Amino acid sequence: MDRPEAFIVSIGDEILIGQIVNTNASWMAEVLNQIGIKVREVRTIADTQEAITETLDQILDKFPIVLMTGGLGPTKDDVTKTTLETYFGGGWREDQEVLHQLERFFKERNRSLNEANRGQALLPKACTTLLNKMGTAAGMWFEKNNTIVVSMPGVPYEMKHIMETGVIPGLKKRFSLPPLLHRTFHTEGIPESELMGIIRSWEDALPREISLAYLPSAGRVKLRISCLNHKGIGEELMNQAEDGLRNILGGEIFGVDKQRLEEVVVQLLVEKEYTLATAESCTGGLLAQHLTSVPGASAAFLGGVVTYDNSLKIRQLGVPPAYIQQFGAVSKEVVEAMAEGARSITGADFALSSSGVAGPGGGSAEKPVGMVWIGLATPEGTYSKCFRFGSTRDGNVLRATQSALNLLRKHLIGMPWRENFWESRS
Amino acid sequence: MDRPEAFIVSIGDEILIGQIVNTNASWMAEVLNQIGIKVREVRTIADTQEAITETLDQILDKFPIVLMTGGLGPTKDDVTKTTLETYFGGGWREDQEVLHQLERFFKERNRSLNEANRGQALLPKACTTLLNKMGTAAGMWFEKNNTIVVSMPGVPYEMKHIMETGVIPGLKKRFSLPPLLHRTFHTEGIPESELMGIIRSWEDALPREISLAYLPSAGRVKLRISCLNHKGIGEELMNQAEDGLRNILGGEIFGVDKQRLEEVVVQLLVEKEYTLATAESCTGGLLAQHLTSVPGASAAFLGGVVTYDNSLKIRQLGVPPAYIQQFGAVSKEVVEAMAEGARSITGADFALSSSGVAGPGGGSAEKPVGMVWIGLATPEGTYSKCFRFGSTRDGNVLRATQSALNLLRKHLIGMPWRENFWESRS
Repeated sequence: MDRPEAFIVSIGDEILIGQIVNTNASWMAEVLNQIGIKVREVRTIADTQEAITETLDQILDKFPIVLMTGGLGPTKDDVTKTTLETYFGGGWREDQEVLHQLERFFKERNRSLNEANRGQALLPKACTTLLNKMGTAAGMWFEKNNTIVVSMPGVPYEMKHIMETGVIPGLKKRFSLPPLLHRTFHTEGIPESELMGIIRSWEDALPREISLAYLPSAGRVKLRISCLNHKGIGEELMNQAEDGLRNILGGEIFGVDKQRLEEVVVQLLVEKEYTLATAESCTGGLLAQHLTSVPGASAAFLGGVVTYDNSLKIRQLGVPPAYIQQFGAVSKEVVEAMAEGARSITGADFALSSSGVAGPGGGSAEKPVGMVWIGLATPEGTYSKCFRFGSTRDGNVLRATQSALNLLRKHLIGMPWRENFWESRS
Repeated sequence: MDRPEAFIVSIGDEILIGQIVNTNASWMAEVLNQIGIKVREVRTIADTQEAITETLDQILDKFPIVLMTGGLGPTKDDVTKTTLETYFGGGWREDQEVLHQLERFFKERNRSLNEANRGQALLPKACTTLLNKMGTAAGMWFEKNNTIVVSMPGVPYEMKHIMETGVIPGLKKRFSLPPLLHRTFHTEGIPESELMGIIRSWEDALPREISLAYLPSAGRVKLRISCLNHKGIGEELMNQAEDGLRNILGGEIFGVDKQRLEEVVVQLLVEKEYTLATAESCTGGLLAQHLTSVPGASAAFLGGVVTYDNSLKIRQLGVPPAYIQQFGAVSKEVVEAMAEGARSITGADFALSSSGVAGPGGGSAEKPVGMVWIGLATPEGTYSKCFRFGSTRDGNVLRATQSALNLLRKHLIGMPWRENFWESRS
């Protein structure tokens, strides 16, 4: 069964001048994909009659669904509604339900309905109204030549409200939607090109119903498999594919779908009733920040120190001054002493530490920008590992943070770092 | 003078399925607008030969500039490069400079160049290479029928690098761009609606050559003035407008253009040869992370502690247990004791502290989610201030961090917090 295709059209100069990021389109795309509608294209166009008309001319008739957002405010630079009335014809009507809704809306806010706002109840006769309980601009549902054109306001929570109460139910009623399944697996620290080699046999053996996408970002690759749930066997095919992938990657998969690494780490700690502390040099607080971004992290994360200055490494963490002199702050000895110090002063079960050359300055031939030591102190002993990241300060700090969390995760699931198979391959 | 128009084409299923938000397009749009190029449309299309070809057919010839990102990885689902080679014709060449660049890139990371990565040096003969020192996929500059088509990788920092080193200089050379001047002033903690009232008289008196935009984000408003540098008087008009704005806002303007608040704070500290430490509870490391994100921050920032658990507030910072019992962790007394403790254990001249209810849980009628105390210990005494932010955890942590930095900045420039004029107005 073919999936119906949708066009998303975002109207507004704010995006075209780079003032805001188009989060609406991503949210809509995700929701549409979940119900089996494929998003063919997202277009961001100017808030002019010409641009809107030209775009509709190009896509009407060719695709069954066009969802537009933006340009529905009460001010004169919002032209979407008049453009659509001209485009679809039929004149205007005052929508009584919208008018009552507007009166309620303003009364609740102790404001009176002015002329500009009353005009929001004036809608093209050609459209069906999609009520907006969160704001003043109603959604409009047009149909012409087998294409549905929906117009919604650009304010994110108003758009979401109209999508959820009007558009999605309407689309489900109109189309017999194929149930499309997605599953995303997260890996950390394996370069995309190496990952490809490692899972090639699995990828080549995937049934034709399943498609695979590699989604790389700094230090990470997400593997997303998708499957049309034809005859209800999609779930089973996805499970088989997941089993096959886990047979190869094992604990290298740190999470599925929306799971974040820091959530997984906090959850593992809480389950095992362990506590954690941090001692950060080059990560400068980002490691603690990642952990504390997880609601409820306080159940496992006691806190940490950011010992940017060497004197604090000595005074706060008890790092022997001789280590710093002899091996340098970016060294196995110092990063391990930092982790042990953090564990000891906080009383935590585990402590993670970082020390590296984040850049842009401070690099040397022996210790170049991007070189980072991560330490882990545990009740059984202290471990450390040296990484070589890239040349940007932000990138190095982020990758050091992610790597530290991943090392702790591997330790907690009993996956010795050395068995990190992509390393044992090299 | 007409401004040349650009199309931005983002290639990749990640956006169409709603997995990521298109931040690249916004960044590119902002940069293009700054140099006087108008962005006509942003299109996000699928990572298929068909979609890329169809889009090029639609826009080539009509607009002088097409900037594409995405689909340049080494894996087989990245089809942009082969599609462009087919589209523009001319066959392939191995680019020696790119190959050397790849060899260096992998050598620096102690990895060997595999076949897939070596393939990244294979480029269409029809394009000029735009070197990518941040990654493995080079940028490509094609020209056909008076249209420039540039293809760049979708990884944001690689795209930005190629834009800055190759695309922008290239476009400036090719087009006679209208000399558009922009200046952006950053404020923190003044709501947009209040700011509008405060600067209305200034805004109303702006000469017609200058346009003003309000750019709000969490807790902040940027004010951007733009001016076409007609007859070379633009700079002078901008200076006059800036003087007028500074007469009203004074020290409330924390920075201009790309200046970040944390940079301004570090710079003030370094200039005055002061040192700083942090003691964070609700900001969870983000305050230290903001400070350490500034290259060279180590000249002023000694380090800090993240005392998420109350026991660490006591053990690490010497907060009296009675304070926590009597006033609670989120209190003037505790946040001031935290700042004093951090100052004392690190020996820093100043210490900033935070304690608040970040949410989503932990709120009460008396201390609701979004309530945050910020403390500042100085050689002359200790100060604190209570803020009420919003309902999201991330937002509260970010705004607490920004507010703490701004309080320190105001102290360092001798601007007493009470003279914060928009507060004295209420």
